[in-house]
Amino acid sequence: MEHLITFTTPDQNSISVKSQTGMLLSDAAHLAGIDIGQPCGGQGRCGRCAVQVTDGTVRRRSALRLSPADIEQGFALACQTVVEDDVSIYVPPQEKIERRLTTDRVVAEVTVPADYDYLSDQTVRRIHLELTPPSMDDQTDDWSRLQTALRLQHRLENVTCSLPLLQKIGAALREGEWQVTAIVDLANVLQSGESDRPVWLIDLQPGHVDEYSSLWGTAIDIGTTTVSLWMVNLVTGEVKAQAAEYNGQIARGEDVISRIVYAGKGNGREDLRQRVLDTMNVLLEIACKRVKAKPEDIVKATIAGNSTMMHLLLGIPAENIRLSPFITGVNHLPVMTAREVGLSANPEASVDCLPGVASYVGADITAGVLSAGVDSAEETTLFLDVGTNGEIVLGDRDWLVTCACSAGPAFEGAGVVNGMRATTGAIEEVWINSETFEPTYRVIGGGKPKGICGSGLISLLSEAFITGILDKRGNVNLMATSSRVREGAHGGEYVVAWGAESESGEDIVLSRVDVDNLLRAKAAIYAGFTVLAETVGISLEAVSKVLVGGSFGKYINVEKAVQIGLLPDMDWSRFEFLGNTSVKGAYLALLDWQKRERITEIAKRMTYIELSADNTFYEAFTSALFLPHTDLSKFPSVESALQKN
Amino acid sequence: MEHLITFTTPDQNSISVKSQTGMLLSDAAHLAGIDIGQPCGGQGRCGRCAVQVTDGTVRRRSALRLSPADIEQGFALACQTVVEDDVSIYVPPQEKIERRLTTDRVVAEVTVPADYDYLSDQTVRRIHLELTPPSMDDQTDDWSRLQTALRLQHRLENVTCSLPLLQKIGAALREGEWQVTAIVDLANVLQSGESDRPVWLIDLQPGHVDEYSSLWGTAIDIGTTTVSLWMVNLVTGEVKAQAAEYNGQIARGEDVISRIVYAGKGNGREDLRQRVLDTMNVLLEIACKRVKAKPEDIVKATIAGNSTMMHLLLGIPAENIRLSPFITGVNHLPVMTAREVGLSANPEASVDCLPGVASYVGADITAGVLSAGVDSAEETTLFLDVGTNGEIVLGDRDWLVTCACSAGPAFEGAGVVNGMRATTGAIEEVWINSETFEPTYRVIGGGKPKGICGSGLISLLSEAFITGILDKRGNVNLMATSSRVREGAHGGEYVVAWGAESESGEDIVLSRVDVDNLLRAKAAIYAGFTVLAETVGISLEAVSKVLVGGSFGKYINVEKAVQIGLLPDMDWSRFEFLGNTSVKGAYLALLDWQKRERITEIAKRMTYIELSADNTFYEAFTSALFLPHTDLSKFPSVESALQKN
Repeated sequence: MEHLITFTTPDQNSISVKSQTGMLLSDAAHLAGIDIGQPCGGQGRCGRCAVQVTDGTVRRRSALRLSPADIEQGFALACQTVVEDDVSIYVPPQEKIERRLTTDRVVAEVTVPADYDYLSDQTVRRIHLELTPPSMDDQTDDWSRLQTALRLQHRLENVTCSLPLLQKIGAALREGEWQVTAIVDLANVLQSGESDRPVWLIDLQPGHVDEYSSLWGTAIDIGTTTVSLWMVNLVTGEVKAQAAEYNGQIARGEDVISRIVYAGKGNGREDLRQRVLDTMNVLLEIACKRVKAKPEDIVKATIAGNSTMMHLLLGIPAENIRLSPFITGVNHLPVMTAREVGLSANPEASVDCLPGVASYVGADITAGVLSAGVDSAEETTLFLDVGTNGEIVLGDRDWLVTCACSAGPAFEGAGVVNGMRATTGAIEEVWINSETFEPTYRVIGGGKPKGICGSGLISLLSEAFITGILDKRGNVNLMATSSRVREGAHGGEYVVAWGAESESGEDIVLSRVDVDNLLRAKAAIYAGFTVLAETVGISLEAVSKVLVGGSFGKYINVEKAVQIGLLPDMDWSRFEFLGNTSVKGAYLALLDWQKRERITEIAKRMTYIELSADNTFYEAFTSALFLPHTDLSKFPSVESALQKN
Repeated sequence: MEHLITFTTPDQNSISVKSQTGMLLSDAAHLAGIDIGQPCGGQGRCGRCAVQVTDGTVRRRSALRLSPADIEQGFALACQTVVEDDVSIYVPPQEKIERRLTTDRVVAEVTVPADYDYLSDQTVRRIHLELTPPSMDDQTDDWSRLQTALRLQHRLENVTCSLPLLQKIGAALREGEWQVTAIVDLANVLQSGESDRPVWLIDLQPGHVDEYSSLWGTAIDIGTTTVSLWMVNLVTGEVKAQAAEYNGQIARGEDVISRIVYAGKGNGREDLRQRVLDTMNVLLEIACKRVKAKPEDIVKATIAGNSTMMHLLLGIPAENIRLSPFITGVNHLPVMTAREVGLSANPEASVDCLPGVASYVGADITAGVLSAGVDSAEETTLFLDVGTNGEIVLGDRDWLVTCACSAGPAFEGAGVVNGMRATTGAIEEVWINSETFEPTYRVIGGGKPKGICGSGLISLLSEAFITGILDKRGNVNLMATSSRVREGAHGGEYVVAWGAESESGEDIVLSRVDVDNLLRAKAAIYAGFTVLAETVGISLEAVSKVLVGGSFGKYINVEKAVQIGLLPDMDWSRFEFLGNTSVKGAYLALLDWQKRERITEIAKRMTYIELSADNTFYEAFTSALFLPHTDLSKFPSVESALQKN
C-alpha cells in the first residue's frame, strides 16, 4: 500500500513523498531529499536520528534511545521506524558538520626529503616531443608516430593510454604543430627495471610546456573522522597547500563498524562512496584554488587510510571486516585512474591506494610506519596511532609486529555526554585545583565552551584522578566538598563549566558513564601494546622510542596521558608526537617510487597479531580498566604524584 | 533571438522547440527528438533531408537538390537551412531501414579450422579454483587468497582485474563456499611467452561451472553498409549464430566520406558512435537469444572493419582520414574492455579491434587477407574487396602490396536512379534478348521489383553492352528498335521494368547518368589492380588466383563482371568468391592467438601504395572508363562475345 509522508523541516519547508508500507522513515526522508544524520549507521543505537510524528501512526521496531515521555510526544528513530499510514513528520535541526580548513590547527610544516631527486625518484615525468609531420610519403598513423617519438627520443618502448585520451591525440599533435608535451607514468618500468613494461600516458598537451614548471600530485589520508590532503609540486617535492575536512561519511556512522553496517543496507555502499568522494573532491578544489591549478593538472594521487575507509572509497564490500574471522576484500590494490575512482583530477591520473595488512591495520599504518621510520629504526620502537581504533606497531629494521584494539570513539568525543571533536569551542585542556576542586580550562578558538575534545578529556580525567575527585575505579567521590561534584542522571558527575559560562547555557559535565567509556578506550590501547610486547618477549623497558601518530596524538599532554594509564610510564624523552603520519607516508610514497616500494615491503613484513583471539588480551584489558592500572608499581611517576597530593 | 519551431510529422504529431537564430533545421529537429535522415552526412548533396516550410520564413544556405517548384512549395534541405523566424515545418515520411536478419542470404556455412585446439590456441579459459577458507589463523584478504590459488593451481603469476570486478569477488568466493570458476584472458602471457605478464580476470563465478560448457565470443565486421556478427563457442570453435543488420550510421551518410563530414559537426561524432553501437548491441541481443545466452556470457569480441568505421566506433576523430595526406588516428589499437567500448557483453570482456594499414586499407582487409590465405599463398594472388571503396591486395607469402580506390557506392545501389541495396525487391540478375531487347530478370524474394541492386546493375550493364543497347562509351543507342530505349530526363535510358510490373508503379530504368557512375566505379577498381600490379612489375597473366571478398562479391556473375571490364579477362577457374572475408578473419583471430598475431604481421608487412599520388592511376582510370576498356585486346573473351552478337 502507498502512503503520503509529509516532512516538515525547522525552516518550515514541507516536502511530501509517496512510500510503500514498511519503508523506513530514514529512507522516505532520503527520497524527499532531506538529510537525517545517522551517526551509528542506522543501527538504532545513537538516538540522533529521532524525528517527531505529528500526525498519523508509525511502527517503531526499536525505541531503545527514547524515553516514554519522548514516545508520548511522538518521537521515533527514523532508522528504526516504518511507515504504515499517511503521516506527518517534523525533522528537528540536524547537527551541522563544520568545515575545518587549512587555517585550522591541522597544518603542519613539511620539509622536502633532502635526497629527493625528481628525475630518479618520481614516476611521473613531463617530456617534450618533436614529431616529423605526416606527408604523402609518410602516412603513419598519429598514434604510431607518437609512439615512435617516445621510443626514439625518450627510450619509452611500450606506451599505452586510455580510449578517451586516444580520442584527443590527433588534435593535440596538430594544435601543437607536431610539438607536444607528454606526461607519462613510468612506475612499471622503474619498479621492474625492464624497459618494455607498459608506460602510462597521462596527458598530451600541444606545444612545449616548460619541463620544470609545476606538476601537481596529491597525498591524501582518509581518516574515519577527518580527510587530510596535501597538494604537492612533484618537480620540487614541495607541499604547496594543505586542506582537511570532516569525512562526509560521519553523518552515516561515527566509527568504522557503524559505517560497515550502514554500507550493508540498501544503497548504503554507494552512498558512503559518494560521500567520501565528495569530501575529497571539495578538498581538491580548495587545494587547486590555493595553488592556482585546475583539477586536470593533478596527475598523480597517493591515498592512505584504514582498511574500511579504503574499501568504502572503492565500493568494495566491507562487511567481512566486521565479522569473524575479520577478512578484508583486498589489501594490495592495483593502481587505478582518477576516472575509475571518481576523483576530481586528471581522469588519467594514477591513483595509488597504499597497501594495508589486515582488517584493522590499514594503509594508514603502513604509511605511518614508513614516515615514522619504524621500519629502519636501529632500536626497538613502539608506534601508536590513537584514533577511533588504536593501531600498534612494535619493531625495528629487522622485525615488525602489529595489532589493533577497538578503543572506541571516546577520545574523539563520541560516546561522552559533552564530548565533541577538536574544533572551535572544545575544551582542550583542564586543570583542577586540588583544594577547591575548581577547574581552569582552555577552549579552542578562545570563546565559550561547547564541549570537551579528546585531549581535554584526557587532561580532565587525569586531573580529576590526581585531585581525588575520581578514585582508581573511576567512581566519583561524592564526599568531595564542592558543588561541582554531584549526583547526575547517569550516576556521579563533575561539572567542568556551569551553564552560565557555556555556549548552550547547559552545564558541561564529566559523568560516570563518560569515565567508563574513557577507561575502556585507554585500557584497550594499553593492553594492546603490553600484550603485543609480551607476545614477542620484549619488556616495555626495552622500548627505546614511543612514537605517537594521528593528528589527535599531537595534542596529548604526555604527563596526563601517563597519569590515566594510556601511555606507559617512562622517561618523557622517549616519547615523540608525530601528527598525521599517514598523510606524511602517502606524501613520501607520492614523491619516491622506492619509498612506495618500501611501504609494500612493510605491509608484507608486518606480522599481524589478532588480539581478539587471545585470552591474554582480555586479562590485560581488565587490569587496565583502573586509573592508572591495577598494578600501580607499573606507574612509579603516578604513584609519587598521588603521594604528593 | 529565440524562435519557436513547430514540427509536424506524417502521423500528425506536432512538437515545438525553441531555437536561436541561425540554428540548422536538422539540429532543431534533433532537439525535438525527430529523426531526419541525412545520407550524405549533412553536406547538402543528397537532397534526402528535404522538409516543407508551411509557415514562417527560413534562410536556405544551399538548395542544390531542389527544383524551383520544390522551393515554391516551401521545401528546404534541413541540413542547409537556418532558422530566422517562428516557423512551422512538415517532416515528410522518412526512408525506413529494413532489418535484415540471419534468415537473409548473408548466412554462410563455417567450418571450424581442423587444427583448432581450445587449450593451446584460445586466450580465454575457464578454470576451476578451490580455496582454503579463511580462519583466525589465516586472515589473508580475499584478493590475495584468490591470487595465490591462481598461482599455485594454474601457474598464473600476475592476475589483474577491474575495480567493478574487485567489488564482486568477496561475494563470489563466499557464495561458492570457496570453490569458484574464473574466466581469464591469457593473451599477454601467450603472446610474450613470459609467465609474469598480466593475466586479465574477466569473471569469477561461484561454484564449479563445467569447464567445457559453452564459452561465448563474438566476431564482428563493421561494414559501412552492413554490420555482420558471428556468435562463437570458444571451446569448440563452432559458429552457433550469425546475424547481420544495416549499420545504423547509414541515416547519417551512405559512404565513409559523408560520415566523416557528419562526425565533424556538433554532436556528430558521438551520434555516429552511438548509432553503430546500437546496431552491434541489437545484433548481440539477437545472437544471444538464438544460443540462449546472456550478454554477460560473451567474454571476448574481435572486431574488423574499415579504418573509418573503427574510428567512429571508438569516437576517435576521423577527419584526417579524409584530408590529404590522409592520416588515421590509430591503426594498431590496444585491447579494450566491453565497458570501455560500450558493447553489450560482459563488461570485462576483451574487445580486440584488429589493426589496419592506412586510411583506406583497414582491419577489414588485414582480416580478409588472413582468411583468404593471401599471406600464405605460394603463387601470386590478387585479393579484391569490392564495396563502397575498392581495396586491393596483391602478393604471396613473401610480399604484400595494397592500395585503395574510391569506387563510390554505385555497386551498392547509391548514386543510381533506381539503385537499391541487395534486399527484398531488388532485381539481382538481368538477361536481355539481343533481338527484341526485352529483358528477363530475377527479383530477390520473388515479388514485384523495387529497384536494382549491385549484382543486377553489373548484369544489366553487361547485357545492355553485349546486345548493343549501350556502346563502348556507355551511350544509349537510341536507334535501337524498342520502346524500352528512349530519351529520359537525364539523357538516353533503358526501361528494365514497366511501371505496371513494378512495386511503385513507376518505370525502373537504367539512365545515362547511372551508366557513368557504374563506369567510374568499375574503372576505379580495374585501374587500381592494374596499376598496383604494374608498380611491382607483375603482369596480370602472372596472377594465379583472383580472390574476391565482400558479401557483395559473392553474388557477382564472373562472365558479366569481365564483360563490363570490372574483373580481368582470365580463365574463370582462377576466380574465387569468398563472401565476407573480414568477419571470417575476425573469427579466426577470435579463436586463435597465433592467427591474431599473424594479422598484426600482415598489417606491418603490407606496403601501402597511395594511388591518388600517382599520375599512372589517373591514366589507367581514364582508359578503363569504357566497356570493357579502351584496349579491347585486354579482353579477348569479350571481343569474341561481341563478334558473335
